[in-house]
Amino acid sequence: MSSASTLEKGSIESNVVWHHHIVDKRLRARLKSQKPCLIWFTGLSAAGKSTVAGLVEKKLTEDIKHTYLLDGDNVRYNLCKDLGFSEDDRVENIRRIGEVSKLFVDCGIITLCAFISPFRNDRRMVRNLFESYEFIEVFVDTSLEECERRDPKGMYKKARAGKIKEFTGIDSPYERPEKPEIHLNGDEHTPDELANQVIRYLQQNNYILNH
Amino acid sequence: MSSASTLEKGSIESNVVWHHHIVDKRLRARLKSQKPCLIWFTGLSAAGKSTVAGLVEKKLTEDIKHTYLLDGDNVRYNLCKDLGFSEDDRVENIRRIGEVSKLFVDCGIITLCAFISPFRNDRRMVRNLFESYEFIEVFVDTSLEECERRDPKGMYKKARAGKIKEFTGIDSPYERPEKPEIHLNGDEHTPDELANQVIRYLQQNNYILNH
Repeated sequence: MSSASTLEKGSIESNVVWHHHIVDKRLRARLKSQKPCLIWFTGLSAAGKSTVAGLVEKKLTEDIKHTYLLDGDNVRYNLCKDLGFSEDDRVENIRRIGEVSKLFVDCGIITLCAFISPFRNDRRMVRNLFESYEFIEVFVDTSLEECERRDPKGMYKKARAGKIKEFTGIDSPYERPEKPEIHLNGDEHTPDELANQVIRYLQQNNYILNH
Repeated sequence: MSSASTLEKGSIESNVVWHHHIVDKRLRARLKSQKPCLIWFTGLSAAGKSTVAGLVEKKLTEDIKHTYLLDGDNVRYNLCKDLGFSEDDRVENIRRIGEVSKLFVDCGIITLCAFISPFRNDRRMVRNLFESYEFIEVFVDTSLEECERRDPKGMYKKARAGKIKEFTGIDSPYERPEKPEIHLNGDEHTPDELANQVIRYLQQNNYILNH
């Protein structure tokens, strides 16, 4: 059953069967000496999520690990380009990103996601797609003051001026993670130091093994 | 700009900027001695698409290549579970699969897709997401008679009895590829022979390099 188009209307449940693919997650992980997982960066706009995630990816790749970074920029234009900014679309956006991440983890990849993802329920929905050891929430905890000071794209300025509505931290809430696996202090450390903190976590918890 | 949720309503165009990720497709390909691509299997239900794709994946993995197989079974329940079987949903289903495949190819993976994908326009839409050398259409050309004879899930029988509507080959058309990169004769060859034919194509066209 592989059709996108030609199935009977309605009852797919009874006809869609999981193939047990010959090449599975465990085999792929063995080939790479890495434990595939999803590293989910959350935090305010301009907190440094993409920057830190990019540095983590670079350090892992130098160590011949295989990674992939998803962020707003490579999904908004493409996979999620049909979605707007309604409540429903916001949830669907995060859901798809979670499902795609799950495919990447299944493929043996250390997957990194960098999204503001301000709501606990959305983050929990993604977490619940994974085994507990596969999901690593990274809270990039940079203060609103510091994010506003950076404001690389002038977004906070626009939000303060009322030109952007429902901007996280200004007129829309950011729900801080209660028990993130990794808590990064973005006010006091450089992106490189923060990336090293993530790498140490991966080493200490055996996500990356020495050759 | 990484939010799924907190952007201004409306004009994302001006604010979404592509990050130039530090780790790119070329670097990943160099690390793996493989040229990432999408191998798109199309053909009737029970033509052997998933079987052949699975064997290609197995052979590539034995050669330490890195692959991933997407088919109806691992996207219908998950990424595309919100979609039904309307014309629009059919196109959206294939569109998302194409976009996800593009992310996998960007990640350096030899990506395999096995979907009936009976319509030329849908297949062309996916092809157009890629550079020409990145998209390899594989027509698993097994005759309707042979597919009906196999009928592993009794789908053709149901379609003939009118219990399934718009079933490809019965009461919905299958538009044969006009110029597939690879044309497999599913009536005359075993799945293993067909898989070897795909492997030879990949070797001859330098998608996989010898170590």
